[in-house]
Amino acid sequence: MTTTYFGPWLIRQSEIFFTTELSFALVNLKPVLPGHVLVCPKRIVPRVKDLTKEEFTDLWLSAQRISSVVEEHFNGDGITFAIQDGKNAGQTVEHVHIHIIPRKKFDFENNDQIYNEIEKEREPRSYEEMEKESSELRPLFEENKNKTF
Amino acid sequence: MTTTYFGPWLIRQSEIFFTTELSFALVNLKPVLPGHVLVCPKRIVPRVKDLTKEEFTDLWLSAQRISSVVEEHFNGDGITFAIQDGKNAGQTVEHVHIHIIPRKKFDFENNDQIYNEIEKEREPRSYEEMEKESSELRPLFEENKNKTF
Repeated sequence: MTTTYFGPWLIRQSEIFFTTELSFALVNLKPVLPGHVLVCPKRIVPRVKDLTKEEFTDLWLSAQRISSVVEEHFNGDGITFAIQDGKNAGQTVEHVHIHIIPRKKFDFENNDQIYNEIEKEREPRSYEEMEKESSELRPLFEENKNKTF
Repeated sequence: MTTTYFGPWLIRQSEIFFTTELSFALVNLKPVLPGHVLVCPKRIVPRVKDLTKEEFTDLWLSAQRISSVVEEHFNGDGITFAIQDGKNAGQTVEHVHIHIIPRKKFDFENNDQIYNEIEKEREPRSYEEMEKESSELRPLFEENKNKTF
């Protein structure tokens, strides 16, 4: 039985839809837009500069792959990638994580309004909803699931 | 003589402070905050999904290294990393680029206000100012300048 933490939070395996040797991706409790997911290194460190080259490479190659899949799955046309690296950059969970957010025309009045939304207080959705999304995404990565880049 | 383009824009060599075989980094005509720089793949493609694994890896390992240097040089404590991947994500120059922005406590009233600033119309600064900044940063990377990751 694997236990996975996102910062101090124990994550249910059913929330995780993608893993490699060094990274994992999870669905979001409070997505800003449909398909807003997070990719994290397995090792819990707060800052990008704390990651080894191998971890950071694996993290971003995972993000590249995941972004293509979620963009298509959620009918997006564009992706917002962001890392809030440190508290002063808006980071709230002290564990490096990439936000991957599929975008569409007119999803916000101003394209960059999205970033304000990332940290706003939002209503959490239900675990059932999260598990449903995760189980929809997981099969899309089944091929070479544990491939290391 | 090398010519470097950022999308359709010819970039002066004096604006570039870091290069690898596959990537380059330049100072910004309209920085949102001091030390706001851009890292690009040398190949001009609009979307992250168009990049090879080698290009994307080199791009992000470059960004990791650059972020440590600019954070220290500009007395930051945190970094905002962002890619607006496609027009609907706010991309204005159709050439993949990572925004690297050193952050400080109270640099904006709301930490995530930064993202609205990225696309707002801002006054361009002078080339003299850009060249000065670039020439301050360049020596900080001289060691292993053309190192491939």
